[in-house]
Amino acid sequence: MLVPMLADLSVGHPDWQTFAISAAFTLFVGVSLLLTNRMPEFTLSIRQAFLLTTLSWVVTAAFAAVPLMLAEMGLSYTDAFFEAMSGITTTGATVIVGLDNAPPGILLWRALLQWMGGIGIIVLALSVLPMLQVGGMQLFRTESSEKSDKVLPRAAQLASWIGLIYLGFTALCAVGYRLAGMGWFDAFAHAMTTIATGGFSTADASVAFFDDPLVELVGITFMLAGALPFVLYLRALRGDLRPLLADRQVQWFAAVVTAAIAIMAAHLWLERDYEPLAALRLASFNVVSVITGTGYATSDFGTWGPFAAGLMFFLMFVGGCAGSTSCGIKIFRFQVLYATADAQMRRLIQPHGVFIAYYNGKPIPEAVSVSVMSFFFLYALCFVVLSLSLQLLGLDYLTAMSGAATAISNVGPGLGPVIGPSGTFAPLPDAAKWVLSAGMLMGRLELFTVLVLLTPAFWRQ
Amino acid sequence: MLVPMLADLSVGHPDWQTFAISAAFTLFVGVSLLLTNRMPEFTLSIRQAFLLTTLSWVVTAAFAAVPLMLAEMGLSYTDAFFEAMSGITTTGATVIVGLDNAPPGILLWRALLQWMGGIGIIVLALSVLPMLQVGGMQLFRTESSEKSDKVLPRAAQLASWIGLIYLGFTALCAVGYRLAGMGWFDAFAHAMTTIATGGFSTADASVAFFDDPLVELVGITFMLAGALPFVLYLRALRGDLRPLLADRQVQWFAAVVTAAIAIMAAHLWLERDYEPLAALRLASFNVVSVITGTGYATSDFGTWGPFAAGLMFFLMFVGGCAGSTSCGIKIFRFQVLYATADAQMRRLIQPHGVFIAYYNGKPIPEAVSVSVMSFFFLYALCFVVLSLSLQLLGLDYLTAMSGAATAISNVGPGLGPVIGPSGTFAPLPDAAKWVLSAGMLMGRLELFTVLVLLTPAFWRQ
Repeated sequence: MLVPMLADLSVGHPDWQTFAISAAFTLFVGVSLLLTNRMPEFTLSIRQAFLLTTLSWVVTAAFAAVPLMLAEMGLSYTDAFFEAMSGITTTGATVIVGLDNAPPGILLWRALLQWMGGIGIIVLALSVLPMLQVGGMQLFRTESSEKSDKVLPRAAQLASWIGLIYLGFTALCAVGYRLAGMGWFDAFAHAMTTIATGGFSTADASVAFFDDPLVELVGITFMLAGALPFVLYLRALRGDLRPLLADRQVQWFAAVVTAAIAIMAAHLWLERDYEPLAALRLASFNVVSVITGTGYATSDFGTWGPFAAGLMFFLMFVGGCAGSTSCGIKIFRFQVLYATADAQMRRLIQPHGVFIAYYNGKPIPEAVSVSVMSFFFLYALCFVVLSLSLQLLGLDYLTAMSGAATAISNVGPGLGPVIGPSGTFAPLPDAAKWVLSAGMLMGRLELFTVLVLLTPAFWRQ
Repeated sequence: MLVPMLADLSVGHPDWQTFAISAAFTLFVGVSLLLTNRMPEFTLSIRQAFLLTTLSWVVTAAFAAVPLMLAEMGLSYTDAFFEAMSGITTTGATVIVGLDNAPPGILLWRALLQWMGGIGIIVLALSVLPMLQVGGMQLFRTESSEKSDKVLPRAAQLASWIGLIYLGFTALCAVGYRLAGMGWFDAFAHAMTTIATGGFSTADASVAFFDDPLVELVGITFMLAGALPFVLYLRALRGDLRPLLADRQVQWFAAVVTAAIAIMAAHLWLERDYEPLAALRLASFNVVSVITGTGYATSDFGTWGPFAAGLMFFLMFVGGCAGSTSCGIKIFRFQVLYATADAQMRRLIQPHGVFIAYYNGKPIPEAVSVSVMSFFFLYALCFVVLSLSLQLLGLDYLTAMSGAATAISNVGPGLGPVIGPSGTFAPLPDAAKWVLSAGMLMGRLELFTVLVLLTPAFWRQ
């Protein structure tokens, strides 16, 4: 909060006091908790790890909302919490209208929230989730998470390296945006929300405001960079590019993105009367934005006709790779689901044959298959509950369906006139904003981390 | 085809010739194939069983469409095939406007198709699908399907009993409708499509035409009867009601239906200003119709507001019990998915505990879990492909989404002004009708039966 305070102070905007007060308040609460809960040593049980993970996201959002509420803009606490949750979950759905004239503090605070949320989720996916065996994430156990007694030092070391890479990408992205013509402030604010696949912009019109193919090219590059497994960059940095290029998840992701762009561009060109190059430009940026869960837009893709809207709706669920900043079901889960269903089909044809599902050249353990499939089922179930809840609150079919999808997959905008790329979430009833905040949290923490807290078994002695 | 011929002949409608010609044509093709393919004996391989199952539905629809095309009504072959496929898959989606003035032959033919489709699918689910181990159906292996050398005689015996029960229910239902005030013709036509959870009516307005609570009560009773596992009736008939009442699938189904009706009725009463009794009546009939995949309607539930439409949309996927005439994902699969996800959650909390998923008091074999989960994934995938195809053909979001759902789950009407309960599928482009026909076939044959035919492995030597 001190960073946006300095930003507001430098332009003489009175919001600097807001950030100062919020920082003092947060520091006070934090230090009080620290002092009253000092223990000589402690070990984290599995239950405590689940609770800590969920609470750390909720508490961060709760405190991050304070300056948003106190600022001159005057958001209600509901709106401020929604915006903060949308920030740290790297969703990018916004309730704020008038970003173009907003003071730098607020804009920087929103960007920082997404940036911190992005690095937070990578570290979580690398260290905590595989240990907790959430939704098939045990496929990605590294040495660091395998031997529980050595978790902390190795995880800390790994996290520092990943943090450096993240910082490097952010700097590169900012320079890229600057060279493409943005001012330094916009370049840094967008760099932070690009690499985090977050999607908060400094303009109401999102990236369409800049209307520059170079800006979009930089955006596409770093949205994709943010959606790849960061641990592979570490190896690439050591000079070995093979793991990155040979990784089956990366290959599938590249194939899915290319296919989606090609289909969308062909559709816009052949059936919606766009010029071929304009179609390719629109399709590339917006498809990458949706599939990586970033949520920038250079056009209201909800108005591109029924097929484009439908394709965007389903692409929202896809997401990027595991161990990246992107959310959604994620590519590796589709690979596991596909491999399992394929083995299943072969078994039907030859009941006495032995068919094994493979991932990245290794047989998929039965426990991982079941774990991934449970995840998929719970994802569908949570989507149904979310969209029914939104419909119960009066939202129309398209807004409710796409709102639930965009929240649980941490994309950002939905479809339709209200929450589509050219609208905001501001007109929704307060209750809907809380439902959507819960959806963002569940999606961001891979469902299980939040859902286990709702089971009676978790709270039993 | 001789039955509707006689019906048309009795009222002197010229369509009787249509049915006579179609019957002669079908007989000719059938006998030709029989004579040219006579073999002293044969055994059916697994591949042939898959092919036979799928082809028998496609070929039946192809020939059943002939009289619909030749009749005075003058449907195109696309429309006739769609109607026939909607018939034998017990879907109930129609392209015909003007049922109220249609000759009895056509009405009877549509009812007969659904009636035959209904008994066909029960026998398939009891004898063939468990043998083929499709989508977890191996949970329902009876003695008849367990020992493959004894399959045919026992299956035939079982099928005869089930057939008698089916006939008995149809007769009871017809008498019920007659007593409730319908004419004998309408009573029989509706009895055949009620017990088959089909949904073809003799009036454009569907059951709303009769506007009679007693008719609706009979309808609800026998739609529910059609959605329960028929093999349990066999035991109940032998005097032992316990298997029927103690079956966990039946209990869950009852709970889901009751909960859905209660929620819908409460919503209509409290938030949509219906009288309490009117709300209960509307909710009971239409919820049961959608959840069992019948597809009758007493009101255009798409106009009951966003929540009601959304709830109906998701209820379409639910379906009834395995071994019934209803389609959809089916209750037992949700039970397996839930039990597996629940065991998964417990395992997360206590990684060293042993947690086993149970179905009906017995541990679920890992193979069944994986099979059911693959089914669920493929169901979602087919739904996505269907609805994107429909959107590509120009259908709007709501029509495409609900059309795909209603086709794959064999419900009947969709949502919205075009294909909702007060519309028909007639205005859709021809290509959309073929896509929907494919969806109905896949859904009816539990996906795998059709999808294996599309894998290269199936056709390899």
